[in-house]
Amino acid sequence: MNSIEILDTTLRDGAQGEGISFSFHDKLAITGLLDELGVAFIEAGNPGSNPKDIEFFREAKKLRLQNARLCAFGSTRKKGIAAKDDANLQSLLAAETAVAVIFGKTSRLHVESVLKASTQENLDMIAESAAFLREAGREVIYDAEHFFDGWKEDSAYALQTLRSALEAGASRLVLCDTNGGSFPWEIESITRAVAAALPAPLGIHAHNDMGLAVSCSLAALQAGAVHAQGTLTGAGERCGNTCLAALIPSLELKLGRRCLPPGKLSRITELTRKAAEISNITLPGGLPYIGASAFAHKAGMHADAIIKTRASFEHIDPALVGNGRHFLISEMGGRSAIAERLRSLLPGVTRDAPVIARLSRRLKELEAEGWQFEGAEASFEILARKLSGRYESFFSILTYRVASEFYAGLEEALKPRIYPANAWVKVLVGSEEEIAAAEGDGPVNALDQALRRALSRFFPVLREVRLDDYKVRVINGSDATAAKVRVLIESTDGCTTWTTVGVSTDVIDASRKALVDSIEYKLFKRKE
Amino acid sequence: MNSIEILDTTLRDGAQGEGISFSFHDKLAITGLLDELGVAFIEAGNPGSNPKDIEFFREAKKLRLQNARLCAFGSTRKKGIAAKDDANLQSLLAAETAVAVIFGKTSRLHVESVLKASTQENLDMIAESAAFLREAGREVIYDAEHFFDGWKEDSAYALQTLRSALEAGASRLVLCDTNGGSFPWEIESITRAVAAALPAPLGIHAHNDMGLAVSCSLAALQAGAVHAQGTLTGAGERCGNTCLAALIPSLELKLGRRCLPPGKLSRITELTRKAAEISNITLPGGLPYIGASAFAHKAGMHADAIIKTRASFEHIDPALVGNGRHFLISEMGGRSAIAERLRSLLPGVTRDAPVIARLSRRLKELEAEGWQFEGAEASFEILARKLSGRYESFFSILTYRVASEFYAGLEEALKPRIYPANAWVKVLVGSEEEIAAAEGDGPVNALDQALRRALSRFFPVLREVRLDDYKVRVINGSDATAAKVRVLIESTDGCTTWTTVGVSTDVIDASRKALVDSIEYKLFKRKE
Repeated sequence: MNSIEILDTTLRDGAQGEGISFSFHDKLAITGLLDELGVAFIEAGNPGSNPKDIEFFREAKKLRLQNARLCAFGSTRKKGIAAKDDANLQSLLAAETAVAVIFGKTSRLHVESVLKASTQENLDMIAESAAFLREAGREVIYDAEHFFDGWKEDSAYALQTLRSALEAGASRLVLCDTNGGSFPWEIESITRAVAAALPAPLGIHAHNDMGLAVSCSLAALQAGAVHAQGTLTGAGERCGNTCLAALIPSLELKLGRRCLPPGKLSRITELTRKAAEISNITLPGGLPYIGASAFAHKAGMHADAIIKTRASFEHIDPALVGNGRHFLISEMGGRSAIAERLRSLLPGVTRDAPVIARLSRRLKELEAEGWQFEGAEASFEILARKLSGRYESFFSILTYRVASEFYAGLEEALKPRIYPANAWVKVLVGSEEEIAAAEGDGPVNALDQALRRALSRFFPVLREVRLDDYKVRVINGSDATAAKVRVLIESTDGCTTWTTVGVSTDVIDASRKALVDSIEYKLFKRKE
Repeated sequence: MNSIEILDTTLRDGAQGEGISFSFHDKLAITGLLDELGVAFIEAGNPGSNPKDIEFFREAKKLRLQNARLCAFGSTRKKGIAAKDDANLQSLLAAETAVAVIFGKTSRLHVESVLKASTQENLDMIAESAAFLREAGREVIYDAEHFFDGWKEDSAYALQTLRSALEAGASRLVLCDTNGGSFPWEIESITRAVAAALPAPLGIHAHNDMGLAVSCSLAALQAGAVHAQGTLTGAGERCGNTCLAALIPSLELKLGRRCLPPGKLSRITELTRKAAEISNITLPGGLPYIGASAFAHKAGMHADAIIKTRASFEHIDPALVGNGRHFLISEMGGRSAIAERLRSLLPGVTRDAPVIARLSRRLKELEAEGWQFEGAEASFEILARKLSGRYESFFSILTYRVASEFYAGLEEALKPRIYPANAWVKVLVGSEEEIAAAEGDGPVNALDQALRRALSRFFPVLREVRLDDYKVRVINGSDATAAKVRVLIESTDGCTTWTTVGVSTDVIDASRKALVDSIEYKLFKRKE
């Protein structure tokens, strides 16, 4: 099998997307899930332009990746500076990755008007930068910026830039359509011409400014490239990068070209959705292969045809990418998946069991109200317990009161004093009541702490539990602050981690629901 | 000029998209704006499967369209029924459109397994249906369902189905990739083969299940097709139809093929966004050509290069499609981008001005604390005013207190009562104080309402202002509920819209900052 090497640049080019801003922990989490998916390279930052990335690379080294190699990204050396004195190349070394990706200019226009350098100087910059990194023991991937535009201007010079990188030791030459303005047929014929001229593994880096990034990537791979760059969700500057979640399944399922280790393709839906969640971006429902609507069928006729012949309105079996078929009018999809998910709680349950029908109905109602149990398995289990008679109530909250206060200090030029948010809560356990109070950073933190304090007299095991992650998503933006919010809480006891969800118009009420589920889940697990 | 005929099917195939449901008035509004854009055909409904569509077509006739012709859509006659007795064909006539689009089967597999008809019967169904509509004076467009799959199964039979339609009087033969599973190179070679075999105007109808719909449409048009179907926003069943807003600009600007009347292309951004608004769908920011981020630039290096050479990171001038360039303010953004953004506040400012250096430094500090000004232009302007001596304080908040309360009703099986969150706030304007209180859906909504109430005595103009959108993002997930949150608030006064940002560990405090910026921004604009 003729395989393709995948480089994901979510953490570098993807971070250029509008609205995307990764924290240190977001970057580690995305690195982990890309490795789990099994991409070959993770381009994780640009330490020259963002010094925080060096700290990230230091920490990321400890992750012990199974499949992927980390890459630091940066430009070739500056004009008129020796490679060893170039701050950017030094920061690439400081990142201590096995692989460095450097980009240089292909286009005479850009060399002359942007760099204000001569064409020979540009070739030297490419060659010396690649050689310097090779000598320091790095594998070097060379990204040829604006390659296709440069080729159209002067193909001989464009080839010379690649040759400079290759002869200086670059292991991959990546042809970039930096402004996303090339058509697939241009990319195909130019890639073919480069492949004929140079004995080197070629790559493709496309942008989606004409809605053609996936197609351009396929065109280059059909023409001889063996390395494809993109971002899992398609995030990136302007219209984004090649969406790898759309590209990889076509390559693996339809063109017989392996991109991921065996068994990984069926995890691409789950992992791409997680990456979107961490990036705080909403994936379009119609995203190819992995979108929530990608296998949704509305027209009655089609749903009928699908039951008669699977292939008629589905180009692949959705299970191959870990997605599911979904009928929008007649509720048919889902039940097998629900039964599957409840295998451990309800051994031997089948899709036809009445409890599955009840649960499926209830899920539909809750989803219409903005709930989403994907990624909130612990809340899903609590819901299933409630509907199958396997639920017991360990405690209830009788009252809480959460307050936030703010006082401007008039004397010191209105410098505000914000008091810690404070909460008090009264719980009932059996026939005993307990009251506790706490301050916190923000109202939800205060409520969480007061609640745990009140309950830990009865359930000391809760002292081990802490919240690991907290996410708020506004569901219907159009009503502004009166919109519903969905809160996702990830809890851990040091050994395992579980996620719960709550929905309300009030962020504190939504958080209460997720906190209660989280505590109940822990108490059920301890009991079993 | 070699022109392309555009058929928009937003109101028919687009209506199959998940979450889309058009009212009668929505359909009229979309018909009007598609005509304004100047597409050749508007496929506006399926009167056979949706009897309400007949009423729509009756009303739509009164619209006096300038550019487009309305089409009613339906299937060929049923097996074993004479065309004149077929309810579906009768409903196509009842729609009284100049054009009827009928679809029929190409694939032997579907003829045999779905229709349970013989291959000859299928040819008769196609021919008799087209002939019947022609005799009634309709122009007939024939959509060949599953054409490419059918061709791969049996190309001779696939051609026969087209020939049946052509000989019976169909004016266009549209090759449909119904399940979106074909690659552009397949579509190109098959379209070329059909064009060589049949002397008829061909069309293309593609779906986006592999993220290739635009590319597949281009491939067919390059191979000889002259008619392209899609939906303006790309909406449609599963992954959607060909997005015409992405296809048309490439055809007109890059391939010299006219699709719209002269002067209309520059309205495509505005009209597509309106269509999305009416459809109640959120367009991805990165939608090619017309998305809000389609010409947004973040990396400092790029913004710098764009100012030097326009073409380097923009494949077209955004004004050609009525969109605009947009520099994102961020630590990656660089001084040129900051200066560019402040052109109207500080006329003549250059990247080397001391105020730009101060602002750039301050931005870096704030971004390290979790602020992000990209997309929050109004907060950015307030910050720039503060650092350039162009700021004045209109009011200050002296105190606020926001509370959320919860009481479990013990009698009714612990059914909780959640009281509306409540806020009171004291403001200072000049030397006058004012106190107001409000309840709201959630603490932030309560605070917003109390604050506006207190200030509107002094600034009645604030009564026009309302919040349009509200977003919460947790910045560093690892500290869970003690993490920082970033709040983005979009406000509107009915004419313009502006966005502000606030960061804090406390969601209410973060919201206060964004609310204050929003109000100050409005007061500055009113004054100027």
